Amino acid sequence: MSLSLDAAAQDLLFREARTANTFTDEPVTDEQIQAIYDLVKYGPTAFNQTPLRVTLVRSAEARERLVSHMAEGNRPKTEAAPLVAILSVDNEFHEELPKLVPHAPGIKDAFFAERPVREQAATLNGALQAAYFIVGVRAAGLAAGPMTGFDFAGVQKEFLDDDHTPLMVVNIGKPGDDAWFPRLPRLAYDEVVSTV
Amino acid sequence: MSLSLDAAAQDLLFREARTANTFTDEPVTDEQIQAIYDLVKYGPTAFNQTPLRVTLVRSAEARERLVSHMAEGNRPKTEAAPLVAILSVDNEFHEELPKLVPHAPGIKDAFFAERPVREQAATLNGALQAAYFIVGVRAAGLAAGPMTGFDFAGVQKEFLDDDHTPLMVVNIGKPGDDAWFPRLPRLAYDEVVSTV
Repeated sequence: MSLSLDAAAQDLLFREARTANTFTDEPVTDEQIQAIYDLVKYGPTAFNQTPLRVTLVRSAEARERLVSHMAEGNRPKTEAAPLVAILSVDNEFHEELPKLVPHAPGIKDAFFAERPVREQAATLNGALQAAYFIVGVRAAGLAAGPMTGFDFAGVQKEFLDDDHTPLMVVNIGKPGDDAWFPRLPRLAYDEVVSTV
Repeated sequence: MSLSLDAAAQDLLFREARTANTFTDEPVTDEQIQAIYDLVKYGPTAFNQTPLRVTLVRSAEARERLVSHMAEGNRPKTEAAPLVAILSVDNEFHEELPKLVPHAPGIKDAFFAERPVREQAATLNGALQAAYFIVGVRAAGLAAGPMTGFDFAGVQKEFLDDDHTPLMVVNIGKPGDDAWFPRLPRLAYDEVVSTV
């Protein structure tokens, strides 16, 4: 009652949405991914740097290569998901800044001349965008299965390049049978929030 | 039309929501923050590690100390916001894992015995939770003003401890007059999403 967001939307995005481990065969279309992107691209990042990049693994050959780099426990679901996306960050995102912050093109060199600074900023802001993307998958009525259990160097070498660092792999689709375990506990408000 | 989320919720969370730079005087209550937390605590993290911690800066004395660590351009809005929250991560989050993943208490030592591993995991998963928190602030009908322009070491020393690393500071409130600049451009779908 303290929220403006309607209850159905709360359920769709957070309360009933769950990380899925099984999926139906229903395909996930490019149109759905485009609709998700067109919504979550507006999520805020520092200096509008938007470093997130998404690689949709659609071919059987690419899926097989990806599965070989997943931790063993993640392989069956990564094989079975209707769509798998590699979320990565572009550590050279600063090249886009003159387009993204046209009123202040100097930000590119003033703040992001150094690669380690860019990597740190890309990781933080790319993770924010990854969370918006997960929320967007749920907004599309789909379940997301985000995973960090994989060989990061292997996935980078197979699918990306030296300038792009993987953040996570996300299975996407309609949840199948026994798609999830019972909801795990969360920390109580007082364990997380304090006041000074 | 490819999304299940209703248009009003899309607008509230992403399309019309904006990073606010000015705020009205209307207070933000603890009940609102509790409602936000009770929604976004369900956002997924790896191994349910939920490392995000929130420090609400409510006293005038604490606000003054925080403002002194903000970048100059962020000071006026941090002074004026009805509520300011420091979002940080608990790098010792693994101590909570036996409670958070009661079916697999061994995860704590098997994966998170090393502090650098914990710091990396806390940063990634804390950033995901920071994004859920920003979405939750918007779900409460409030505007968020996330900022990374501050002295991280100074804020850590003033408000946290060696085990807690700041992620960002967020101004929270109802948007005031001229609360934002025109929306900045976003990357096109084809610049962000590729297919293999």
